[in-house]
Amino acid sequence: MGVTENVQKPLDRMAASLAAEMAAVNDLIRQRMSSRHAPRIPEVTAHLIEAGGKRLRPMLTLAAARLCGYDGPHHIHLAATVEFIHTATLLHDDVVDESRQRRGRPTANLLWDNKSSVLVGDYLFARSFQLMVEPGNLRTLEILSNASATIAEGEVLQLTAAQDLATDESVYLQVVRGKTAALFAAATEVGGVIAGAPEAQVRALHDYGDALGIAFQIVDDILDYGGATQTIGKNVGDDFRECKLTLPVIKAVARADAAERAFWTRTIERADQREDDLAQALHLLARHGALADARADALAWAARARTALATLPEDPLRGMLADLADFVVSRVA
Amino acid sequence: MGVTENVQKPLDRMAASLAAEMAAVNDLIRQRMSSRHAPRIPEVTAHLIEAGGKRLRPMLTLAAARLCGYDGPHHIHLAATVEFIHTATLLHDDVVDESRQRRGRPTANLLWDNKSSVLVGDYLFARSFQLMVEPGNLRTLEILSNASATIAEGEVLQLTAAQDLATDESVYLQVVRGKTAALFAAATEVGGVIAGAPEAQVRALHDYGDALGIAFQIVDDILDYGGATQTIGKNVGDDFRECKLTLPVIKAVARADAAERAFWTRTIERADQREDDLAQALHLLARHGALADARADALAWAARARTALATLPEDPLRGMLADLADFVVSRVA
Repeated sequence: MGVTENVQKPLDRMAASLAAEMAAVNDLIRQRMSSRHAPRIPEVTAHLIEAGGKRLRPMLTLAAARLCGYDGPHHIHLAATVEFIHTATLLHDDVVDESRQRRGRPTANLLWDNKSSVLVGDYLFARSFQLMVEPGNLRTLEILSNASATIAEGEVLQLTAAQDLATDESVYLQVVRGKTAALFAAATEVGGVIAGAPEAQVRALHDYGDALGIAFQIVDDILDYGGATQTIGKNVGDDFRECKLTLPVIKAVARADAAERAFWTRTIERADQREDDLAQALHLLARHGALADARADALAWAARARTALATLPEDPLRGMLADLADFVVSRVA
Repeated sequence: MGVTENVQKPLDRMAASLAAEMAAVNDLIRQRMSSRHAPRIPEVTAHLIEAGGKRLRPMLTLAAARLCGYDGPHHIHLAATVEFIHTATLLHDDVVDESRQRRGRPTANLLWDNKSSVLVGDYLFARSFQLMVEPGNLRTLEILSNASATIAEGEVLQLTAAQDLATDESVYLQVVRGKTAALFAAATEVGGVIAGAPEAQVRALHDYGDALGIAFQIVDDILDYGGATQTIGKNVGDDFRECKLTLPVIKAVARADAAERAFWTRTIERADQREDDLAQALHLLARHGALADARADALAWAARARTALATLPEDPLRGMLADLADFVVSRVA
């Protein structure tokens, strides 16, 4: 391997290695996001799907299936299923969070309306279930339908837990497992199942996806406060302004004195925020080393993801999956 | 059969005849609407599910399965699946329509918020897919996942078509087939499939559910204008106030002169309504016989539903299904 290839992002290397299959996934997605009767469906869906998402989740399915020696056609359907579930949850998330931007563009709920986002999201959910039925494999159906329920459960839990200072790290982990890791874990696991991989490998793929998803979400939550080094980029503080309790704040709250606790109660629980509050929040996170500690957690989860790969066959794809775990946390290095 | 039994509503007779199985369906629904982590899920779901809905759709599945001689356990899962899909769509419909009342009680979006309704609806969709996977029957999975996509497609089509005077009866039929008849047809069809009924009977059950659902929705749309006899009940005119083009108005628009057309354009397309507009709308519907004609359409669909039953086994349940078709349209008799 040359130096260039070494430093190339693992996701790009994986995309290159799975280029033909990813093209097939993209074709299938485009084909199934159409609608005979309702032109608004492909309009809304294309806005999101063509916006240059990284297709990380379907790539995980393809990589897992290939790594386990699969040479049939069904991983394409499963990968497209995973991307449809992801896209549907994005549409609904943006309604729930009243978001105005996604992937650097105005959200669908802003461009069209909440109604379209809710109903087109439902359509994509239904399309994902049609797609996952097609391979005729009951176990992948179970895994993906369970993941869908876990995702929705995590989102509902977040509704009530995210603004409650009693939320501790174990509840945070449940939310994150639901809203993020469940789909990562299902994406990798179904790849192994469709390949007929031994139980231990299927389990390993699940554990890899679970740990990768958790690391991914913790990193996202750290970046929302400008990263572990607190370089303030753009969009810092969205979670704070939305009064969303994430891991850094949970760590700072656990170490808060009475005055600090009053600050968090006012700004997060009572949603009463003033001009300098974000600066004060960043100050408190720094004071308690909350971002650095959250980063250590993310690194530990990435390490668990790498470790889980040990039982899987030796293959360049395995190396890329391992590098992907490191890459995910490198955003807060 | 005594006189009392003859005049008893067909739905009540069906419920009595399927009492043990409906109890099993209700148990399964209650069990699956729970959530280990998010207590808001059973709260919101119970509000809707316990509100005394008639459980018409799951009853159709049970009746179809029994009529075709099924004696296994899986129709219970399929019936609960159908009710979960229905409940999920109600939650999302009330968000989309900004409804404040459902089954005589405040809607979930009013009691909690839109976010809870969107996400709990997603949870119930996912739960419905878990449930439908359990019988391990790929054909029922196909039917139900296709129905879910058709429902969402119908709802999106309605978004754009309902306020557009160019919407004709064929587009209306597409919307109604999506938002209402697809689930009726799937409910009866999967009952036949799980029973291993011959193809002709499965087809007949599908056609019965399709025609029954269309009749049901046309009747609903007539009642929204006070019924074919124009006795003004409460809540008359909701569709008009929401600028929703339904069959009666489509018929009146088709027969409108220039001034009338201007009236419909202003009130429906431009949503510019004044105090006496509903009275004027009712006057125009009467002038063109629009409600009476819509009623004739509903009766024709009910007759098609009855006719479809001909190839099914002779059984008291078949009689009840036939009576149900008449009962549905008797509301506008």
